[in-house]
Amino acid sequence: MPQLRKDPVTKRWVIINLEKSRGPKDFQLPNPVHSADNCPFCPGKETLTPPEVMSYREKDTLPNQPGWQIRVIPNKFPALQIEGDLDRTGIGLYDMMNGVGAHEVIIETPNHKCGAAGYTVPQMTTIVNTYCDRYRDLKRDRRFRYILIFKNNGQAAGASLDHPHSQLIATPIIPKRVMEEIEGARQYYYYKERCVFCDIIRQELSAGERIIHENENFVAFAPFASRFPFETCIAPKDHKASFGAIEESEIEGLADILCATLNRLVKTLNDPPFNYIIHTSPCDENCGEYYHWHLEIMPRLTKVAGFEWGSGFYVNPTPPELATSFLLQNSP
Amino acid sequence: MPQLRKDPVTKRWVIINLEKSRGPKDFQLPNPVHSADNCPFCPGKETLTPPEVMSYREKDTLPNQPGWQIRVIPNKFPALQIEGDLDRTGIGLYDMMNGVGAHEVIIETPNHKCGAAGYTVPQMTTIVNTYCDRYRDLKRDRRFRYILIFKNNGQAAGASLDHPHSQLIATPIIPKRVMEEIEGARQYYYYKERCVFCDIIRQELSAGERIIHENENFVAFAPFASRFPFETCIAPKDHKASFGAIEESEIEGLADILCATLNRLVKTLNDPPFNYIIHTSPCDENCGEYYHWHLEIMPRLTKVAGFEWGSGFYVNPTPPELATSFLLQNSP
Repeated sequence: MPQLRKDPVTKRWVIINLEKSRGPKDFQLPNPVHSADNCPFCPGKETLTPPEVMSYREKDTLPNQPGWQIRVIPNKFPALQIEGDLDRTGIGLYDMMNGVGAHEVIIETPNHKCGAAGYTVPQMTTIVNTYCDRYRDLKRDRRFRYILIFKNNGQAAGASLDHPHSQLIATPIIPKRVMEEIEGARQYYYYKERCVFCDIIRQELSAGERIIHENENFVAFAPFASRFPFETCIAPKDHKASFGAIEESEIEGLADILCATLNRLVKTLNDPPFNYIIHTSPCDENCGEYYHWHLEIMPRLTKVAGFEWGSGFYVNPTPPELATSFLLQNSP
Repeated sequence: MPQLRKDPVTKRWVIINLEKSRGPKDFQLPNPVHSADNCPFCPGKETLTPPEVMSYREKDTLPNQPGWQIRVIPNKFPALQIEGDLDRTGIGLYDMMNGVGAHEVIIETPNHKCGAAGYTVPQMTTIVNTYCDRYRDLKRDRRFRYILIFKNNGQAAGASLDHPHSQLIATPIIPKRVMEEIEGARQYYYYKERCVFCDIIRQELSAGERIIHENENFVAFAPFASRFPFETCIAPKDHKASFGAIEESEIEGLADILCATLNRLVKTLNDPPFNYIIHTSPCDENCGEYYHWHLEIMPRLTKVAGFEWGSGFYVNPTPPELATSFLLQNSP
């Protein structure tokens, strides 16, 4: 069972892997290469993964066999484990608990070589639908306080397999970064009685200089204080705290803007490594008035070094207005 | 002039480079290689850098000429600029100010090939003395609220030049990460009336299982909730909030434990990329009772991916007790 440990100064939680620990030699190995021939996420290799949690698949095909468009499986090397109780304990001034949680992999397509810009809007719609299905299902487990959906694309962004996939981690605590956003939004709301994200969206749409894409329900823009070159935020225009509350009629709009934004990024930056992350409200937090879910895309073009780690203060060599103008030179 | 912009939700400041901005093509170039032949930090190449701020050098040698052991120069491509006023302004709900600050490079040795484990204790003592000299000098400039001293070692840790060097950045605001530590320490103090760092040091010394090195004035240990494999914290045993308050008699002790710890890391992990950062109290903050300066060393062995960025929640595959036992197998 992994262990959760809390830093007594910053109150940051860390997952410590006690069972499959890595020693000095493990960090000196090159990453294993998975070609389409030995990829455990490719059709025909279903037995190499844990049994599927769900799939979108052709009629009359069986679970854990080919015929799927999307396949959700438990992570074979989970950061957190689904069974067990939290068992909170202390050692002197330190706090810890069992690493209980869920860690799933969403295999987005049977096509090993489909890049981030390779999806049609209907395909992306099925991916977004899968995110929703898993989010809503796991939200019912009362041990979980937060559900994080994210994608690591490319080795430099932390992906260990090339086959296109996203991940979902359900955690027994509300992560620190999420609490910071919620607290910032709460303070703004108490002062202004308006949602800070709604105000940002209004101001961005009116200024126009950082807008990357827009459709009926969503807007993609480069944040005013972008930490990274070509950082992009996709947000619903209507105020809504939880990703899980997205309506049937909005899902295609999210798929459309995600396709358009990723296509522009891939063309402008020649298929860059990137992460995207859905920021949503915690499962049980009452922040519906002031929090506003959104999706953050971070191309990984620069290295985070000592200054950033020590200060939480970022240096961005590409002003977001300039990034926007480059992105708009390419078709969506 | 660089621009400081504040994120309206998280209140995180970002430095945006408006003058030497980087477009898509700039991210596709390989890093230039600087061998000892064309290294601007090597002796004989002093004219390739801005004029030195100070140096430790042989008697009867002139500034900006060979004969130095340590040389401090303004960064040729500074993240912040020394001249000018802050000029705080707003645009709608956004806040910004001019990027006023100091950005210096401490060239630690004339020897291009001296690795992180290549220093004698007297050499490291001169490096620590230089950190103190520059810290105390810049602290007198009332525009600066924080002084961050750090080292990026190796390209994967963000170093753009191989020649051994550290950096110093003085900022006009107190960085977010620093405020978080101070706030955490303050809360603990109000509850316990003791410094949380003093309590951690006491508990670590008594438990022993995460102690990497110890001398009269300092202790090096693997933090209980280490975010990264082989993360190490060096702290003074006596309570002191500001690095600038280090006493003459303690400087050699810091040099000794820094040498010993880096030597163990380099031997155990085969010369890993790493960052180290001095965490100290802000210039004008009255946190003497509850803050405690320390130095954080972070080997860069794992990639930070979507989960960590989205949550501030880290997964560490190497328990700190295991890291300690590996480090202790090598001589200091």
